[in-house]
Amino acid sequence: MNIGVLGTGFVGQTIATALVENGHRVMIGSRSANNAKAIAWVENKVNAFAGTFEEAAQFADIIFLCINGAFIKETINALDSAMFTDKIIIDVSNPLDFSKGMPPSILPAYSNQWSLGEEIQQLLPKAKAVKALNTVTARLMVNAELVNEGNHHLFICGNDTEAKNTVKHLLSENFRWKPEYIIDMGPIGQSRLMEGIVPFWVGVMQAICTPMFNTLIVK
Amino acid sequence: MNIGVLGTGFVGQTIATALVENGHRVMIGSRSANNAKAIAWVENKVNAFAGTFEEAAQFADIIFLCINGAFIKETINALDSAMFTDKIIIDVSNPLDFSKGMPPSILPAYSNQWSLGEEIQQLLPKAKAVKALNTVTARLMVNAELVNEGNHHLFICGNDTEAKNTVKHLLSENFRWKPEYIIDMGPIGQSRLMEGIVPFWVGVMQAICTPMFNTLIVK
Repeated sequence: MNIGVLGTGFVGQTIATALVENGHRVMIGSRSANNAKAIAWVENKVNAFAGTFEEAAQFADIIFLCINGAFIKETINALDSAMFTDKIIIDVSNPLDFSKGMPPSILPAYSNQWSLGEEIQQLLPKAKAVKALNTVTARLMVNAELVNEGNHHLFICGNDTEAKNTVKHLLSENFRWKPEYIIDMGPIGQSRLMEGIVPFWVGVMQAICTPMFNTLIVK
Repeated sequence: MNIGVLGTGFVGQTIATALVENGHRVMIGSRSANNAKAIAWVENKVNAFAGTFEEAAQFADIIFLCINGAFIKETINALDSAMFTDKIIIDVSNPLDFSKGMPPSILPAYSNQWSLGEEIQQLLPKAKAVKALNTVTARLMVNAELVNEGNHHLFICGNDTEAKNTVKHLLSENFRWKPEYIIDMGPIGQSRLMEGIVPFWVGVMQAICTPMFNTLIVK
């Protein structure tokens, strides 16, 4: 499958590398075509490419959005939205505000009654946004078995049921998330909930001194 | 022990009843001394009393605060804060706003960079506020063994370490919370995190069709 990964930070590179290792053709996208991190990432990899955000979107069947939450709106507004028509966008981003210290708060524009997930869907109405993976640390995103033998929950949301099923399958086949542990929270507006718990996640990380954990819902 | 429970709703009554059953003397407090729900609750119980908020606070060694989050500030402002001096307040409340439908959002006054827990501590600086139990459903608050044999996590926070230890002990002895599953999130400001996850909790409840669940942090 051709997959685009928008964002060259640690999360983007971790996801892009895991996808290449799973046999996909991956283009990592950044603001400029000659981004040094993207070029370094491509080196010595098979089926790994670097391009602009638009090139990566155009190249891809599925797009992972791994841009810093603070810059997503201006980034998308600068792109040709036609590149995203009918494509699945897996939105991994979080609208965190670290300016007031740790643990972070939510960027006020996305706090409580609005969310990045919804905004992405609104900005790109012809794409199919699915919020996923934003509630775990990057290394765990791409290998669920690193924690509790893969027995812990992932939460996803989005408006398009078929797109959510495709994402579930992708995460299961490539990143070892057990389908029965993926909870569909509903439409993309539920991103408010999934983004809203991330400051708590940081607090737990600080309390238990590791980011390598997740939530298991028990009844 | 003499325990005051402020609030006569389902949460307050559930906690008050469980405390009486555990052999404590409990006064349930409400705005007026002749509150019908409080009087009905007292009936046929040993060591159960009804009174005003101030009477219940004065009576108590430890106070459970179970008032609707929207009314806590005005309620506390109307009370003589001297009644709370040196007392532990276990703040169970949540600042939920159901006016925009389900799942709820957080009341704007307590969203993101402020919290009820902090406000209670600020309004009653001589009390020792400990946020606890606000992340589970009422029946589970008072009997942790109803879910997964008691193996799931409770989160607490507060500025006073000794008060937090007293609360841990109380919850363990009376409500069967295993001490090793109680995670101290830090000072009372962490209430922002613990209150911030409650809309997500409601979303999970809707997705899995039961309120009788909790989070187990797995590594």
